Amino acid sequence: MDLKGILPPVPTPFVEGMVSTKRLTDNIKKLNATNLSGYLILGSNGEAVMLSEEERKIVLDTARAAIPKEKIMMAGAGQESTRETIRTVQTAAECGADCVLVITPSFFKSAITQEAMVRHYLDVAESAKVPVLLYSVPQYTGMSLQAATVARLAEHPNIAGMKDSSGNMSLFADIVSHVPPDFAMFVGNANTLLAALALGAVGGILAVANILPEACVRLQTLWQKGNVDEARKLQLRLNPLSSAVTSIYGVAGLKAAMDMCGFHGGETRLPLLPVGEKATEEIKNQLDALAMERTF
Amino acid sequence: MDLKGILPPVPTPFVEGMVSTKRLTDNIKKLNATNLSGYLILGSNGEAVMLSEEERKIVLDTARAAIPKEKIMMAGAGQESTRETIRTVQTAAECGADCVLVITPSFFKSAITQEAMVRHYLDVAESAKVPVLLYSVPQYTGMSLQAATVARLAEHPNIAGMKDSSGNMSLFADIVSHVPPDFAMFVGNANTLLAALALGAVGGILAVANILPEACVRLQTLWQKGNVDEARKLQLRLNPLSSAVTSIYGVAGLKAAMDMCGFHGGETRLPLLPVGEKATEEIKNQLDALAMERTF
Amino acid sequence: MDLKGILPPVPTPFVEGMVSTKRLTDNIKKLNATNLSGYLILGSNGEAVMLSEEERKIVLDTARAAIPKEKIMMAGAGQESTRETIRTVQTAAECGADCVLVITPSFFKSAITQEAMVRHYLDVAESAKVPVLLYSVPQYTGMSLQAATVARLAEHPNIAGMKDSSGNMSLFADIVSHVPPDFAMFVGNANTLLAALALGAVGGILAVANILPEACVRLQTLWQKGNVDEARKLQLRLNPLSSAVTSIYGVAGLKAAMDMCGFHGGETRLPLLPVGEKATEEIKNQLDALAMERTF
Amino acid sequence: MDLKGILPPVPTPFVEGMVSTKRLTDNIKKLNATNLSGYLILGSNGEAVMLSEEERKIVLDTARAAIPKEKIMMAGAGQESTRETIRTVQTAAECGADCVLVITPSFFKSAITQEAMVRHYLDVAESAKVPVLLYSVPQYTGMSLQAATVARLAEHPNIAGMKDSSGNMSLFADIVSHVPPDFAMFVGNANTLLAALALGAVGGILAVANILPEACVRLQTLWQKGNVDEARKLQLRLNPLSSAVTSIYGVAGLKAAMDMCGFHGGETRLPLLPVGEKATEEIKNQLDALAMERTF
Repeated sequence: MDLKGILPPVPTPFVEGMVSTKRLTDNIKKLNATNLSGYLILGSNGEAVMLSEEERKIVLDTARAAIPKEKIMMAGAGQESTRETIRTVQTAAECGADCVLVITPSFFKSAITQEAMVRHYLDVAESAKVPVLLYSVPQYTGMSLQAATVARLAEHPNIAGMKDSSGNMSLFADIVSHVPPDFAMFVGNANTLLAALALGAVGGILAVANILPEACVRLQTLWQKGNVDEARKLQLRLNPLSSAVTSIYGVAGLKAAMDMCGFHGGETRLPLLPVGEKATEEIKNQLDALAMERTF
Repeated sequence: MDLKGILPPVPTPFVEGMVSTKRLTDNIKKLNATNLSGYLILGSNGEAVMLSEEERKIVLDTARAAIPKEKIMMAGAGQESTRETIRTVQTAAECGADCVLVITPSFFKSAITQEAMVRHYLDVAESAKVPVLLYSVPQYTGMSLQAATVARLAEHPNIAGMKDSSGNMSLFADIVSHVPPDFAMFVGNANTLLAALALGAVGGILAVANILPEACVRLQTLWQKGNVDEARKLQLRLNPLSSAVTSIYGVAGLKAAMDMCGFHGGETRLPLLPVGEKATEEIKNQLDALAMERTF
Repeated sequence: MDLKGILPPVPTPFVEGMVSTKRLTDNIKKLNATNLSGYLILGSNGEAVMLSEEERKIVLDTARAAIPKEKIMMAGAGQESTRETIRTVQTAAECGADCVLVITPSFFKSAITQEAMVRHYLDVAESAKVPVLLYSVPQYTGMSLQAATVARLAEHPNIAGMKDSSGNMSLFADIVSHVPPDFAMFVGNANTLLAALALGAVGGILAVANILPEACVRLQTLWQKGNVDEARKLQLRLNPLSSAVTSIYGVAGLKAAMDMCGFHGGETRLPLLPVGEKATEEIKNQLDALAMERTF
Repeated sequence: MDLKGILPPVPTPFVEGMVSTKRLTDNIKKLNATNLSGYLILGSNGEAVMLSEEERKIVLDTARAAIPKEKIMMAGAGQESTRETIRTVQTAAECGADCVLVITPSFFKSAITQEAMVRHYLDVAESAKVPVLLYSVPQYTGMSLQAATVARLAEHPNIAGMKDSSGNMSLFADIVSHVPPDFAMFVGNANTLLAALALGAVGGILAVANILPEACVRLQTLWQKGNVDEARKLQLRLNPLSSAVTSIYGVAGLKAAMDMCGFHGGETRLPLLPVGEKATEEIKNQLDALAMERTF
């Protein structure tokens, strides 16, 4: 498994409030035809925190059946306790995930020191049967992984990389300068994809890749070929839509955009409310402006 | 059921990493002899977020068996999705909880507007077979319930009260001035118990009540009898220990203090680390200074 | 000088963008007839940060001429550097201030440790010819004074008290339990006046006291006479207006309310914008609801 | 004047607590021999907030005399009120600054809306006799300029650019995609220099450029020549020292590093405390590791 390239965090489709395995299968099969290197299942955008344990297993089984061997199947598997995280990682591995993405625990904020994080991730990595990636998303958790902490964890043979969604490129650069070259740094924020590539990222796990997969892949390819000007132009064109389906309108915005692009987006689970008319209009206009980037 | 008085948020004891029903039973039975009005089971201090669904049910069943009818059994029952919260509330009611405490959802921070909160709590209250109390603890969730939101929710016949752990007495006063007199406002921070009582709180759900139950009860009684000077002196004496077992050393500090007082404290679940020697010493000194307040 | 009771932080009136000494004099003279124990000149609500050094001196001289000897004249005098703070305190003393209120420095946030605060305040106190009060207002500064820091500073004979505007009554109680009984703790947030009195505050420095001076004084008197129920009722009645002229609409809201009550409120200095129609209407309604509390 | 390239925010040297014009002159003259495109005088690192109005004028006059015509002299000139900012900008222009950098006002946080910011900057730009650059540094101010706000301000012919020190490259990209190509975007955080260049920055205003000017210039040159790998390697090598003299040890760290490199660093003004032995050692080691980058 080569940890690199563009992966979308796949949303979980619901019909009448229940997980729709058919729609999830449809969405993934459609994306299989693209140059995405894989998928993140049960990430934040997969509304993993909204699901029961049983539902999470159904989603993993469904995704495994739909994802071909040559693409990465990464599974979100973090819980608040080390014990439950270990159990969740085990389930993900049994369901066939190639690797797991483990979010920082965050409930007991002030008590979860960097030392506690180190202990947590090492215990998880020791017991995991698949490679572990760290996941830092301060916007949701209020927690950060410091560069020195990541450096320590990167020494463990079963901790293979990290997804950093902070948007803090100063920290991203700091981390890159502290870890070995084969530690796979993914950026989790499409607006900073080019910046992250410049600093040594191996790819991105990007909400907008659910709707514009080839544009995201192309941005990375342009960069790798040294065509920086084109890469930057594409980056700046993608930004408004990328912001709309993440920081501005969140999962509900992403699902609305998917509906407009021929995917199954559909409802979010409450308390996430659907986007209103203004947001729908705005997202539609952004998609229209990017018509040439849309391959679906 | 009369929602008032002092309730401790009961910690969940572990032995070798597993929930110890015996130790939980012991702790509660010992406290039954006091003037506590009831117990919060599976609150933050109960490490509810650390447990599996199955373990949470075991804790509730155990507590139910140990708590006498005349004391309140309140159960923590919030989850990120409205759907899972409803299911969790149902389990709590089936296990015999008298009422449930529902924490604000918080993962998708910016998307969980006050409007989304209103929808969430109304849906939960509609389906719950026991009264629902709101729970706001910004230190852990990064979310707040505004006074106008609480006022709207307080109109629902099945939303009976609130636990506010923010320590923000300006907001507390604001809320009190917006809700009907029979809406039960509990404070969740012992350092502000007297302040909250002055503003109309009916009681407190207080970590320190696990170790100094009668002192907490006495503070409320002194206040109610108009003995404000004594109440204040007691408040100021309690503060250092109360801070130690909450904001400073958290659940691990509380469990260490319980061990010193003849209760079963014991280990926390990782990633929560045990307190170090310095903290242990400090807590011990604080307990010694309060020797006359200890009835166990 | 007896540091206690209710003091309003007096706004600075402008006419055509210039400080109006006449209007400032009018406002103070009108308030002299009340039972306020004194005034804070050049506080946050005095828009001190908006003024030039020369203008600040004019405001102090004007206030001194208008304030009778038997009322406290407290002057805001904090600056970012210890050196400039010392100079500003000296000017305030020369202008006749009875004591000075020194806000925590805050620009270089992470570098201003509690140790740096201690050094800052001790240096200022050593050189000041009038008593110094500490001023903590995290909403504006992003900085806090910890209880241990205040305890250390309270030992200095020339540090006489503190204004705490945090609204954090847990911290307030902590501080009270760490300082000697003669250290004058003022609360800076009217919504928490009763809570603070319960915890041992000597009074309040309250924006709403500019418009409802006697109501604020009466709240403290009711409390001191043990009439807690009436005090609480008055507290809850005052809260909406108090919030409107502080956390919700700020200085512009306070000035609008002053205009409605027969004082000179008038314009704020840009970038503070005037309140809109909706806010004006809301403040007017709140004032109407409090008609019986208005003595002007 | 061509707004681009690398500019150091020049610290203000003190001797016995007083501004040393001689040392300031020495430092600038030494840097004149490098390929820096100019200087920021009275920025955050210049401890501008620590100085009196008179001292600020002395610093500007001194810098003007030392800076050759062909280098940019940018002057920090923001104050809390629009009125005082206008007056400060006027002084800077009279002292010969080529352009001014105006920090976001920040004291009355919640009242300073994006609309208030627009009004503030437009009023300042209208009256300024030199071009105005916006300055956003949320770490110090707690305030942000949204992309839409910057876009609106960039339309004004006298608002020429911006220094963004947030480290938030997602926002940086957003801003770049909203402003005209000739709006000069500077990054204010050396750790993100390469990322910012990839997104279209024209240069950086960087603390570390006070000690390693040619290394910073070379990083930009490498980038412009398409030598991305070398640029990244240099970026990663610079990061630890850059963090040490900014986010970790601040101005005191920067001045300590300057002392080690043959410049006049010296004391900071209180309440900023000098760095301790550990920090000194750490900075020394980082400088040693970068020996080959040091041209002084």
